[in-house]
Amino acid sequence: MTTCFFCTNQGGNVLYNCELYRIVLVDDANYLGYLRVVLNQHRKELTDLSITDNLSMYAAVIKCEQILRQLFQPEKINLASFGNMTPHVHWHVIPRFINDRHFPNPTWGEVTNLDYAPSSALLLAQQNLIQEFQSLFLA
Amino acid sequence: MTTCFFCTNQGGNVLYNCELYRIVLVDDANYLGYLRVVLNQHRKELTDLSITDNLSMYAAVIKCEQILRQLFQPEKINLASFGNMTPHVHWHVIPRFINDRHFPNPTWGEVTNLDYAPSSALLLAQQNLIQEFQSLFLA
Repeated sequence: MTTCFFCTNQGGNVLYNCELYRIVLVDDANYLGYLRVVLNQHRKELTDLSITDNLSMYAAVIKCEQILRQLFQPEKINLASFGNMTPHVHWHVIPRFINDRHFPNPTWGEVTNLDYAPSSALLLAQQNLIQEFQSLFLA
Repeated sequence: MTTCFFCTNQGGNVLYNCELYRIVLVDDANYLGYLRVVLNQHRKELTDLSITDNLSMYAAVIKCEQILRQLFQPEKINLASFGNMTPHVHWHVIPRFINDRHFPNPTWGEVTNLDYAPSSALLLAQQNLIQEFQSLFLA
């Protein structure tokens, strides 16, 4: 348990925290607005959770998608729950843009645009995300 | 619309179909048990669906995870909804095994085990999945 990354690290800048999960902003210069919804207990699979907790996590993921669409107006939202390396339930919620570093591949795939740098509009959206996330999430 | 892959192709062997979505077995020799839950209408993002439809899709994904864990006993389940190339709502549900073709990477990542071939136990599990999916899904 003590060697699990998400049991010993927040995994990013905590924007929201409740008993069941935390929502963190991942520090990734290529992917502004990259959120993770991390379970606040060590479980391997989503189906190891009760239906209630599983759906509560998913509702948080969907709320993150809504907020990211509103603030970042991305080309696409990418959702994933893998955990092959860190088998502790967590969701990735990633706003994607045409010509971003891996587009149209998943961010785990081949780099397609090595020179990509987020625009100033995205930097501003990230500032707004940090400032407004909690109120938008609870709205 | 007519150029959308999932509007013009089932996307795999249909194991279950209802008004909202279909569940297909993807034809991938490296990834037996690879299921997709595909929306039966053209929408880009999960948050373009009503909450009811969104949660119904997710409930199907979770049921797929349960069935795959039961039949395949995988090391990990991977869930993802990307749609960068095919912006038509669909979920990937992939049973993963230590030393499979990309483990521990996502299946969209770098190949780690070029010579991987699924075991005879997994071939049998896939036969059972095809035969029993509908009854397990509706149980």
